[in-house]
Amino acid sequence: MSSPKQQDTISSIAEAMAPQSWSKVSCPCCVSSEVEPLVIIQLADNVESNTKEWIMAMISASHKSGGAHLLAHPGEDASWGRIVVAAPRCTLLRSTEELGLCKADKEGNMFLFSFHDRNNFINIDDMQKFLTLAERQYIVQHELESMRAVKDQRIPGIPGDKGILKSRQNIMQKLQKAGVIQDVFPLCDEKKLKALGKEWYLKKSLWGQPLDTINDYFGCSIAFYFSFLDFYTWALVPPAILGFLITFFLPGTPPTDEPKAENSTSGPGLLSADDDHLSVSSHMVQAAFSMVWSTVFMELWKRRSAALSYRWGTLTLTEHFQDPRPGFQGEVGINPVTGRREPLFPDWKRQMRVGLVSIPVVGLFLGLVVLGMVGFYYCESITASIHKTSGSIITATLSYLPSIIHIVYTNMLGNAYRTVALKLTEWENHREESAFQTNHTTKVLVFTFFNNFAVLFHIAIFKQDLHLLRKRLSSLLILSQVVNQFTEVVVPFVVDRFYSSSQKELKEDDPAADHMQAEGSLPPFPGLFLEYIELLVQFGYLSLFSCVYPLTAVLLLINNITEIRGDAFKICRLFRKPFSPPEASIGVWQAAFEVLAFFSVMTNCWLLFLAPRIKAYTQDVGLNPSTVLVFFIMVEHVLIVVKMILAFVIPDEPDWVQIKRQQIEYRTMKALTGQTVKHFQTTELPRS
Amino acid sequence: MSSPKQQDTISSIAEAMAPQSWSKVSCPCCVSSEVEPLVIIQLADNVESNTKEWIMAMISASHKSGGAHLLAHPGEDASWGRIVVAAPRCTLLRSTEELGLCKADKEGNMFLFSFHDRNNFINIDDMQKFLTLAERQYIVQHELESMRAVKDQRIPGIPGDKGILKSRQNIMQKLQKAGVIQDVFPLCDEKKLKALGKEWYLKKSLWGQPLDTINDYFGCSIAFYFSFLDFYTWALVPPAILGFLITFFLPGTPPTDEPKAENSTSGPGLLSADDDHLSVSSHMVQAAFSMVWSTVFMELWKRRSAALSYRWGTLTLTEHFQDPRPGFQGEVGINPVTGRREPLFPDWKRQMRVGLVSIPVVGLFLGLVVLGMVGFYYCESITASIHKTSGSIITATLSYLPSIIHIVYTNMLGNAYRTVALKLTEWENHREESAFQTNHTTKVLVFTFFNNFAVLFHIAIFKQDLHLLRKRLSSLLILSQVVNQFTEVVVPFVVDRFYSSSQKELKEDDPAADHMQAEGSLPPFPGLFLEYIELLVQFGYLSLFSCVYPLTAVLLLINNITEIRGDAFKICRLFRKPFSPPEASIGVWQAAFEVLAFFSVMTNCWLLFLAPRIKAYTQDVGLNPSTVLVFFIMVEHVLIVVKMILAFVIPDEPDWVQIKRQQIEYRTMKALTGQTVKHFQTTELPRS
Repeated sequence: MSSPKQQDTISSIAEAMAPQSWSKVSCPCCVSSEVEPLVIIQLADNVESNTKEWIMAMISASHKSGGAHLLAHPGEDASWGRIVVAAPRCTLLRSTEELGLCKADKEGNMFLFSFHDRNNFINIDDMQKFLTLAERQYIVQHELESMRAVKDQRIPGIPGDKGILKSRQNIMQKLQKAGVIQDVFPLCDEKKLKALGKEWYLKKSLWGQPLDTINDYFGCSIAFYFSFLDFYTWALVPPAILGFLITFFLPGTPPTDEPKAENSTSGPGLLSADDDHLSVSSHMVQAAFSMVWSTVFMELWKRRSAALSYRWGTLTLTEHFQDPRPGFQGEVGINPVTGRREPLFPDWKRQMRVGLVSIPVVGLFLGLVVLGMVGFYYCESITASIHKTSGSIITATLSYLPSIIHIVYTNMLGNAYRTVALKLTEWENHREESAFQTNHTTKVLVFTFFNNFAVLFHIAIFKQDLHLLRKRLSSLLILSQVVNQFTEVVVPFVVDRFYSSSQKELKEDDPAADHMQAEGSLPPFPGLFLEYIELLVQFGYLSLFSCVYPLTAVLLLINNITEIRGDAFKICRLFRKPFSPPEASIGVWQAAFEVLAFFSVMTNCWLLFLAPRIKAYTQDVGLNPSTVLVFFIMVEHVLIVVKMILAFVIPDEPDWVQIKRQQIEYRTMKALTGQTVKHFQTTELPRS
Repeated sequence: MSSPKQQDTISSIAEAMAPQSWSKVSCPCCVSSEVEPLVIIQLADNVESNTKEWIMAMISASHKSGGAHLLAHPGEDASWGRIVVAAPRCTLLRSTEELGLCKADKEGNMFLFSFHDRNNFINIDDMQKFLTLAERQYIVQHELESMRAVKDQRIPGIPGDKGILKSRQNIMQKLQKAGVIQDVFPLCDEKKLKALGKEWYLKKSLWGQPLDTINDYFGCSIAFYFSFLDFYTWALVPPAILGFLITFFLPGTPPTDEPKAENSTSGPGLLSADDDHLSVSSHMVQAAFSMVWSTVFMELWKRRSAALSYRWGTLTLTEHFQDPRPGFQGEVGINPVTGRREPLFPDWKRQMRVGLVSIPVVGLFLGLVVLGMVGFYYCESITASIHKTSGSIITATLSYLPSIIHIVYTNMLGNAYRTVALKLTEWENHREESAFQTNHTTKVLVFTFFNNFAVLFHIAIFKQDLHLLRKRLSSLLILSQVVNQFTEVVVPFVVDRFYSSSQKELKEDDPAADHMQAEGSLPPFPGLFLEYIELLVQFGYLSLFSCVYPLTAVLLLINNITEIRGDAFKICRLFRKPFSPPEASIGVWQAAFEVLAFFSVMTNCWLLFLAPRIKAYTQDVGLNPSTVLVFFIMVEHVLIVVKMILAFVIPDEPDWVQIKRQQIEYRTMKALTGQTVKHFQTTELPRS
């Protein structure tokens, strides 16, 4: 408790609490001398003690009576504004089965966990080894969120409509809406976090991250992000080397430039490398390489992702067989697949909402972005011409006006869009949380991407000015890196340092309040959207326009290496530990990267066609521009076909993961047909 | 037995055989008063009776001792050169489970059959209702083909090396190689066949086929072909109407032409409809329609196919969990998935063989096709110029020489390729029969397609002569239809009629020999490759070049309507009943149609760009050809993206099939976790 930035930790909470105050477990196998506190529910200040007691009773009640079948603890005393939640063994195991997680069986193979066959799995008696911390905490959150009233009732201590709970209503949602519960967050484990930090952001070597430990502590959605970042950084090495060679060593650069290459990152070549540096062949090589590279990169990532998913036991998630997400609305009926009573909402209605409302609205906003850009160029040309004719200080100031208006407009549009996107996605009424996330992310992603690239596409296609494109691209790259690193790491670090320590001093005398205050002072984790979109936009700069500015990959490589450390520090120290649902891949981001890789073929061919060197070359040879264009179209089509064949030929899963998956499938099928399957020795597998 | 073309039928065989001569069943549940003869094994003339006895013993032996666990009957007497095979109930049920077939449960839902839960399924006591005739016969063939020697032994009555059977060797393959078994074929059921014919090729209405009855009698690979043909024919109606309207009614045709349209198929419009008839807009409409149509057609077919697959119980086939196909070679080891001892062959080796040998060899043959075409054009131009200069009869005859040489060359190349393709696919060593078929079909398909379209592409891309393209296309269409109908129906019919009846007369006195002779006189079914490739090539004419010749769809529609009847008659009457493995879709053909639909965007855009009307129009407006080309490229790209979005947005399975599939998945998973799932009432499903 000496560190000013200390959060509530599992050990400090466990010490501060009386072990006998935990709610009682109902089954003998869950009786344990030690209970691990996992999650804290933060109540509002004015919550009465009978309300707190009712909530605790619901948390420890059985599933049948609408409870969560967890363990609740009132904390230091009954009037303390928090509830500490833990989970008995049975609930953890049953949830593991319900989520469709794979766990290592006695032979060491990851296999779909079954409560019935639990004794075939290892570490079954030690929940802290059997499940990761992130899984245990997610299960607690999952169970809390699935509490539903079994009959119409009144929440004690809450007056008026706020306290009326209807049958089948979600209890946590109701309590949060009524303002009784302010927050639910997982406890952090300072010891584990420190150990993690040491092998992660404090590590001396540039490469390698403790991915399994990250998965253990933060859960696999965050571990997947860092795995992808790691993989992407490695993948940048070949294009960076090629870009470096092309810029500084290939024909076009006089041989005397060679010593300059050594201090290249600050050398004059960085921003001024222009057309004349690049020969036709190096242009071609860069473009063709970039196209093949982006496909191979994504295909290999899929394989890596499948391997990680097997390793982390998320190969066989069964979200579609679980209860719908809390926000899901619909008429109560029988789910045709699981046979459970739950709200139902027909797929075609959702598809209609997406197709007839969401897509047009998104299109409208994209139109507004284009309109803004057109307006900006128009106003700028007007003010420029005014300034030219009457050149006073007023007109000079006026010429800044279009930029300012455009920035304000873009910002307002962006904010409006984010609100609309969230509302639209909620209205689309997705049954699964992952479907909700995918649809929401896609909406924001398309807009952000459009916002970032509209100007570059405008320059490439309409202005056809490669020099300007290169200038814009390099300044965007460098500027965005500096701004990102600054806003992502420096600002939160400084704010946190000063803000939290000044608050700290006020309450130094009260250690219990200190706990809460410290916890409250860490902002909640904002999610991975901004991290991923940053990578995606950079990947866009690289794959879409790389042949214009070959140094892109070098800059991205440098950026990524610092990004890994920065993001790691940020997630460990600057934010509260988030809940992390089990995930099998990076989801929609994978698709987004693939779409970009696909479009990169078109842009690169187009940019090559525009390249002055190539124009000059074809004119020298005496070719008709139309013939050259037809040639480029054919090249483009061949490249697209090659890309598709490559993507088809490289299997999305390594052979050994495929075998593991088939083993699971086979054993599941055999279970249906009532036969037991012999367990196999891992050594008999070709490559596991 | 009055009909001269009568085959061996189930009823005639059953009558002719003494019921007590069937081999004995081992389990009480399989005892039945009536045994249905299903398959006939045709032995060579010189087979000794102890060999026949040994084969019969193996057929009725248990799986453990390497047998097929079937029932064998020596026929009329022990020296008769045939063995009649039937299947006991247990073998049929266990095979149904092993194949992963779905059967209707008590609630009427198709569900993965499980021997253990057999009493939950309907018709479980009546095998003739529970399984279709085609399924029963396929199971017998499947069991026969999986007989393997359990130890080194000698086949009685066969001298020398031919009679030595090694441990794990495939018995049927050995017997066929040794010349002991000449043929294995399913018995036909004349009564069922007649009834089928009445509602099929003898039906008066033009539309509709008895698909379920076809599936029942011939099996689902053939039923899928006719379903596809049916669906395709229906799908041709909109483009046929559009093509008809464009050719005869749209601006460009003088209004006085209208009455001519009524006898359109023979009218002068058929072959002479040329450029000037077609306005720019109708050209555009035709091309855009054809592109959208081909995508929607394929997507809807996938949905239809999924629904049929559910209906016919092939949604959950488990070929990859079964024993490898008989021709599969490899080192014996433990299959990592099923744990069975069987030959293993690493995937990467197969991939290397495909990638490093098969693909280059196929490429070589395609190169030879191009070489042949180039040589032909070259020789033709030479002979033409010789004829021009010295115009004698000799040179006139000489000018036919290139064509003749080219035809001979193409034929020889085609024959060589077919042999090479089969050998290559065998050498690739695919584990599953379906993978073997897919790879073999793909090889032959690519070549055949290339052979058919090389000339048209040459005209479209290099000669850029739309008039010639139209002439070639229409003559190809009409010629190929006439030739196909003739060779497919008329020739076999006539040959069969005269050949078999002349043979018939010789042996009229011996009814037993008559059986055999009649059976032998029907040629074996040649498979569906030629039928599918015919459809594919026609679809290619339609989708790739339709905007050149809008009447294509009309001609194809007429062709398909006759094709349905012709093919139905052929398969019922002119060939021996084939074995038909259960299949879940039309497999590689679906992919082939999709690839064509994809390429059609490119060809149509290109043809539009070449169209003289459009060239004239853009020149009138004063556009640079380069600008027009850029415009067409953008249109093409947009259309490709639209096509991809369409394909992505239309789900490949109807909602209700998805629900059924998820039900199966859920119940299978729950079986693993040891829970029983309540059965659902079909009425609670939204759309089943």
